[in-house]
Amino acid sequence: MIHPAELIQRKRDGAELSADEIEELVLAYVRDDVPDYQMAAFCMAVFFQGLTPAETHALTEAMVRSGETIDLSPLGRKVVDKHSTGGVGDKTSIVLGPIVAACGVPFAKMSGRGLGHTGGTLDKLESIPGFRIELGGDEFLGQVRKVGMAIVGQTADLVPADKRLYALRDVTATVDIIPLIASSIMSKKIAGGADGIVLDVKVGDGAFMKTLDRARELAEAMVELGRRAGRQVVCELTDMDQPLGRAVGNALEIRECVVTLRGDGPPDLVELALGASAHLLALSDLGIDASQGRARAEEALASGAALEVYERWVRAQGGDPGLEALPSAAVLEHVSAPEAGYVQAIATTDIGLAALHLGAGRVTKEDAIDHAVGLVCLAKRGDAVEAGQPLAEVHASDPDSARRGVAEVQACYRLGPEEPESRPIVLDVLA
Amino acid sequence: MIHPAELIQRKRDGAELSADEIEELVLAYVRDDVPDYQMAAFCMAVFFQGLTPAETHALTEAMVRSGETIDLSPLGRKVVDKHSTGGVGDKTSIVLGPIVAACGVPFAKMSGRGLGHTGGTLDKLESIPGFRIELGGDEFLGQVRKVGMAIVGQTADLVPADKRLYALRDVTATVDIIPLIASSIMSKKIAGGADGIVLDVKVGDGAFMKTLDRARELAEAMVELGRRAGRQVVCELTDMDQPLGRAVGNALEIRECVVTLRGDGPPDLVELALGASAHLLALSDLGIDASQGRARAEEALASGAALEVYERWVRAQGGDPGLEALPSAAVLEHVSAPEAGYVQAIATTDIGLAALHLGAGRVTKEDAIDHAVGLVCLAKRGDAVEAGQPLAEVHASDPDSARRGVAEVQACYRLGPEEPESRPIVLDVLA
Repeated sequence: MIHPAELIQRKRDGAELSADEIEELVLAYVRDDVPDYQMAAFCMAVFFQGLTPAETHALTEAMVRSGETIDLSPLGRKVVDKHSTGGVGDKTSIVLGPIVAACGVPFAKMSGRGLGHTGGTLDKLESIPGFRIELGGDEFLGQVRKVGMAIVGQTADLVPADKRLYALRDVTATVDIIPLIASSIMSKKIAGGADGIVLDVKVGDGAFMKTLDRARELAEAMVELGRRAGRQVVCELTDMDQPLGRAVGNALEIRECVVTLRGDGPPDLVELALGASAHLLALSDLGIDASQGRARAEEALASGAALEVYERWVRAQGGDPGLEALPSAAVLEHVSAPEAGYVQAIATTDIGLAALHLGAGRVTKEDAIDHAVGLVCLAKRGDAVEAGQPLAEVHASDPDSARRGVAEVQACYRLGPEEPESRPIVLDVLA
Repeated sequence: MIHPAELIQRKRDGAELSADEIEELVLAYVRDDVPDYQMAAFCMAVFFQGLTPAETHALTEAMVRSGETIDLSPLGRKVVDKHSTGGVGDKTSIVLGPIVAACGVPFAKMSGRGLGHTGGTLDKLESIPGFRIELGGDEFLGQVRKVGMAIVGQTADLVPADKRLYALRDVTATVDIIPLIASSIMSKKIAGGADGIVLDVKVGDGAFMKTLDRARELAEAMVELGRRAGRQVVCELTDMDQPLGRAVGNALEIRECVVTLRGDGPPDLVELALGASAHLLALSDLGIDASQGRARAEEALASGAALEVYERWVRAQGGDPGLEALPSAAVLEHVSAPEAGYVQAIATTDIGLAALHLGAGRVTKEDAIDHAVGLVCLAKRGDAVEAGQPLAEVHASDPDSARRGVAEVQACYRLGPEEPESRPIVLDVLA
């Protein structure tokens, strides 16, 4: 039997714990044999002393073992999955899932909800009338087999240790700890059953990782965890110093996904979706490399095959794939450029908060969401605008919140006389 | 209203919290508005980031305000108190209380119980048949007025925040943090109401502070807390690299106290008691300095006045002051020197543990104590012994535990051919 106080003290003093010790600690915590206060002290000790790769792996394995895991082997295929650390306007999975499936590779994803300034894929999907995010285990597998893809909510039995630990970290100032973030994400991906995983670590103002160095540290930790767990992992570091695409807000983002699948998407979203699809196809059992994957992904998008998969997928989960079915907001206002110039920067977290204030997100888990509201960034970094030209649309439920939204979005835009240096959407790739 | 997670994060990141923030945190914790897990994370952050003197003072003040305080002003005198950080064979308060009171200075002390290898003054006093450690508030004051002194158990309402915080720190590897130790001790001394306080920080193998540097750090923190709270504090750093005096175990220690008050005490105990008494008298309203205090303390001891106070005090609290009233153990065995030589060192913690194993102490708070058992170190550091000469007595409840005790105590003694350097009992004094 472990002595939790002794483990805390050894970690506090910089020692490396054994895999057995970490596993016992986590499983005892889930059983309520280790109380929250000991786990909180442990997490704070980890903030200062870190975890070694072996400890992080042991933690991740213990988290996976704390609950059920998904067995995708009945599909008889290599299955791929994708995860993003979250940002503003990040609807990539909804575009690349159909692309990958259209290329003949099964895509099975469990997704989460948004909190604070970042949106969640499930919330976006739920803006589609009728869309069901809960499928039974057999239904999930059956749909992947039949339609080629599924995106569903994470079941309550998947990695219960993470749910409990995350709630504790959230209120004890122990969220921003790389090995704990890495094991939280990877335990869910490993329990989710996919063989090949593409991770998208967002970097910048609107992301959890503010600097490339921190993002790279997290990416390296996750790639290492994948390697130790026998999964193939590719990790992209991508720009979140402006919203991804143009739309921010649930139904507005679904609309942008459909437009993108019709071949008319914003360049950064198209590039990110095609690049990540290429990596996913290279991780699949097609036996192709990333550049061949890129060509197939482009073909699936251009031919309309991906759009067809999207429509079949949405119908399979009970939704109406037509744009006219999406809810739209009562009030539309424009944000105008106060002067001529180039867009130097868009305060991305504040854009996310503006959408949140319009009703597109939630502050606490219990808040309801207005799927119709949000905003569209018509001008993005590097765009030249004239004085009075619309910078953004604000979609609001009433004139008051529209007015507030316009002011908030206006304040997010920084204009200047010089054209800013352009920055790629993909900053780095680790594998 | 404070946001505990934000305070934890700021402390974690090295910021200084305001006095109001710390007070609200502590008082909210005592009210159960801040849960244990947040306090545990806070304590671990303090382990790594420390507390400034201003923060430590604010914490101490908040702890004092968490409960009742003792008002000694009805005595119309400056009252003195003494505290030791705990060691093996430390019965100093039971000797110096009567000396100080015999010099006409009121001595009012709340004391604690022993845990682990260290003994507690209350446990020692309870080995005196009939002795009551609980007195009502009026009774306490009345006895100090009439007899000149009282030593009682700490009431439940005194510094409840400390009780709760200490129990939490004990199981979260956050005990050995200087500012938290300092505020724990000083909050109880301040709430206890004395104007002048002598602190004895033990240093060495048998003490909580293993090195002079750590001990000095704690001493400086406590003197500073006293200064900020308007109390006069003198802090001695004293040797705990061997047991204090010769006796370890409750009734055996009371016997040694009486022998000491009769003028026949072991040199280290006599020196420590007289030195601390001198400081207490210098802090009193007698208007004398420490060297004058020393002369009066020596006179009180030599004249038998201190012994008389002792007898009146013990009777006042219901006890029988006669040596014949003390319980004695069923079995007495001797530990013999395996060879001739000088005593180089006595493993002090292990001596304390040997007494604990004989039944003199408790492992958990609920354990019962055998007041009669213990040991007497006949030979101390620097003493020359012949082969076969008794090093120590073991007083046990039965032959088996006596045999085990003899082996344990034997293993504590290290003999060698050279006479070791002598070390003073008082290593340093801070004020």
